[in-house]
Amino acid sequence: MSKVAVRGTLLDCISNPWDCAQEKQALRFIPDGVLVVEDGKIVESGASSEILVKHPEAQVEDFSGYLIVPGFVDVHLHYAQTRIIGSFGRQLLEWLQTYTFPEELKFTSKDYADEVAAVFFQEMFKNGTTTVQSFATTHPNSVVAFFEEARRQGALALCGLTGIDREGTAPDAYRDTPQGFYDGSKELLERFHQVDRCLYSIAPRFAFGSTHEQLKMAGRLAEEHPDCWIQTHLSENPAEVASVLEFFPDCQDYLGVYEKYGLVRKRFVAGHSIYLSEDEFRRMGDADASVAFCPASNLFLGSGFFQWDRANHFGVRWGLGCDSGGGNTLSALRTLDDAYKVGMLQVVTSDREKDEESLRLSASKALYAATLGSARCLDLEQEIGNFEKGKWADFVILDTGGSSVLEFRKNGARPSDSLEDACHQFFGMMMLWVPEVIRATFCKGRRVFG
Amino acid sequence: MSKVAVRGTLLDCISNPWDCAQEKQALRFIPDGVLVVEDGKIVESGASSEILVKHPEAQVEDFSGYLIVPGFVDVHLHYAQTRIIGSFGRQLLEWLQTYTFPEELKFTSKDYADEVAAVFFQEMFKNGTTTVQSFATTHPNSVVAFFEEARRQGALALCGLTGIDREGTAPDAYRDTPQGFYDGSKELLERFHQVDRCLYSIAPRFAFGSTHEQLKMAGRLAEEHPDCWIQTHLSENPAEVASVLEFFPDCQDYLGVYEKYGLVRKRFVAGHSIYLSEDEFRRMGDADASVAFCPASNLFLGSGFFQWDRANHFGVRWGLGCDSGGGNTLSALRTLDDAYKVGMLQVVTSDREKDEESLRLSASKALYAATLGSARCLDLEQEIGNFEKGKWADFVILDTGGSSVLEFRKNGARPSDSLEDACHQFFGMMMLWVPEVIRATFCKGRRVFG
Repeated sequence: MSKVAVRGTLLDCISNPWDCAQEKQALRFIPDGVLVVEDGKIVESGASSEILVKHPEAQVEDFSGYLIVPGFVDVHLHYAQTRIIGSFGRQLLEWLQTYTFPEELKFTSKDYADEVAAVFFQEMFKNGTTTVQSFATTHPNSVVAFFEEARRQGALALCGLTGIDREGTAPDAYRDTPQGFYDGSKELLERFHQVDRCLYSIAPRFAFGSTHEQLKMAGRLAEEHPDCWIQTHLSENPAEVASVLEFFPDCQDYLGVYEKYGLVRKRFVAGHSIYLSEDEFRRMGDADASVAFCPASNLFLGSGFFQWDRANHFGVRWGLGCDSGGGNTLSALRTLDDAYKVGMLQVVTSDREKDEESLRLSASKALYAATLGSARCLDLEQEIGNFEKGKWADFVILDTGGSSVLEFRKNGARPSDSLEDACHQFFGMMMLWVPEVIRATFCKGRRVFG
Repeated sequence: MSKVAVRGTLLDCISNPWDCAQEKQALRFIPDGVLVVEDGKIVESGASSEILVKHPEAQVEDFSGYLIVPGFVDVHLHYAQTRIIGSFGRQLLEWLQTYTFPEELKFTSKDYADEVAAVFFQEMFKNGTTTVQSFATTHPNSVVAFFEEARRQGALALCGLTGIDREGTAPDAYRDTPQGFYDGSKELLERFHQVDRCLYSIAPRFAFGSTHEQLKMAGRLAEEHPDCWIQTHLSENPAEVASVLEFFPDCQDYLGVYEKYGLVRKRFVAGHSIYLSEDEFRRMGDADASVAFCPASNLFLGSGFFQWDRANHFGVRWGLGCDSGGGNTLSALRTLDDAYKVGMLQVVTSDREKDEESLRLSASKALYAATLGSARCLDLEQEIGNFEKGKWADFVILDTGGSSVLEFRKNGARPSDSLEDACHQFFGMMMLWVPEVIRATFCKGRRVFG
């Protein structure tokens, strides 16, 4: 692939704004910047005036007036639920029975899985997301279809066969067995892990749906493949938590179940983690495990509020997930709208001891959460998350005036005018999201949308 | 104006779904329907096969395949905050000082007010809203600009001069006086009330910002003009509530302040009403007063959750407000997304005694809230809110496949296929809103958008 120089206003995170004395220190802002891309990677980035002369052979793609940020990283969703997104009226456990399992059962068919996977990746790109960790279903076809499409599209993609075998928690036709889960996972893992940008994520759905025997198999897979990821759900809904404690009476709490089977370690990414005790947060931090924060889902299903100030306090890395279909959007920006609201609701309505400043999700913090923070959550910050030389050329071109209201709100300012303007406009795009704010998406240096 | 027949799938509410044994009974669904419009009013509506032959001279506008619903009614917002919509990081009282008053001060200028009013009504129409009750500022120019633009556009519009005179609650330059508020309101009321579709709404901003003397003047206006509306804010934020009780130590609660000055009656529309006691709900119901539920604002500012199940229990009518700029959207559909989440959060996370079924905001209930329910909240159901003969021809043409995800989610079904499909698709448009779902908006029979 020939060398390309993508010009525009660059904004990325170089560190965690929650850790900075002034959160702006976490940002790198280059009003007239350029990303030099070759072979799918970022060769160099910086001010146009300095960089362009060094690469005279590069073909310039001019996005002046637009804001360029790293591709969004989605750490938790269910691609197989794309068609049932935004289904009415149920909280978690009823949701699964009413909408999820009937739809996911269709993924016995490779054709159906192929169709949904193709639609799904197109939607991701339309929304500026270039890395995604997704659940599949209990059917190997669902994983194969997902990874095949990811390879075709060049996306960085994590996925794994769903494990759910406990009687009564899913339709019989949907449930698998401990051995089936182990064998199926193993086969898919050997076939796809580290192939192109595919990474395998061992995926027992949640302790609610897996028996002792299945979680043992998950633990065995985790032990045999320490470089693989583990994705599951944790403490999402009060009724779910109560059931898990009944199913595993020897465990002190929900996290204790996953600990018992050796799953809680680096690259363990637990969706939701809403009802964690201080002790559970502490143990997550000590184990270097991560949380997938899914605000749209947590509000849509009414699940509750992730306490990221406490996660930060205990050194628990966390990233952002749209959690479609429980989340009612596939857009990272739109998800940040709900993330902001989850923070503000805790500032005002929660009686617990909290860090109010931490809970105000500014543009810097939001950008971090959707990019470098999520990359770190996935232990992938060496490859993605910002514009460091050598990282994958995954980025999004944002039109900060993508709607007439956004344009009016900008009040004549351009994103290149100042860091404050860029941040104000980024915040606007997340709180007043419209599809048109995504002007183009580049994945591995290739223009995949726009 | 000549006679027009607008054809498509008609869906409107004929009663309150919360009061029906089966909520579908509240809906009128005509798969292939037509609205016959003349002189800005609905002459007749029904099945195309029956109606079209009766009006052979009518010019047919064909929106087959689209869903036609009544124009949305927004009962609470601040048009003067259009430019500062989605501003970062403050709860109510700080929000006002940091963003609101500096912006609203600009409305001393008639030119500035004209510019914003023109933008505002365009945005309303883009979003399918045809009736709006808005606050203005303390400057008469803000009200004049609003009503003048409403008249030009033909929108049904309620507005009034803002009253805020308490020292320390707003910048001195922004505050008015009791007499200034009375005189200014009186003059504007006489000039605009009942002119075209303009209606005057007496608007003391809130008991937090008005002195005893100013609220007395508001009461006098209310008494002298029983056919006028009264809009204000009530029990939005814990800090606000606490201050109000300090300012009015002789009142038993927040509502008691407005009662003291004779404001709580029919056509009294109180924004938010989040922290009402059971007794306050009861008194609101007894007085036939209304609540403006503003979910996007209540989540964006972190204010809390309106308990509509209790409002219903006590017979308190309530409608939907986007409450821009505290709400981060101008779209009624997008506002319903947050309304749904406010309901679900209460189902799962609230310990109070509640009616879970009532709190699940189905498509029928959501449509009612944004149309007939809001019309009733404003005591305007004789004029707007559904397709009854003789009502204003305010309606919206909805493209239920307005995005690729919505189209995928429809799974081949058309809104005309069944009431269930129409409802599923309406729910989809509110939870996965994109601007493109609004295909066209008609206000007083005139196509004002699309």
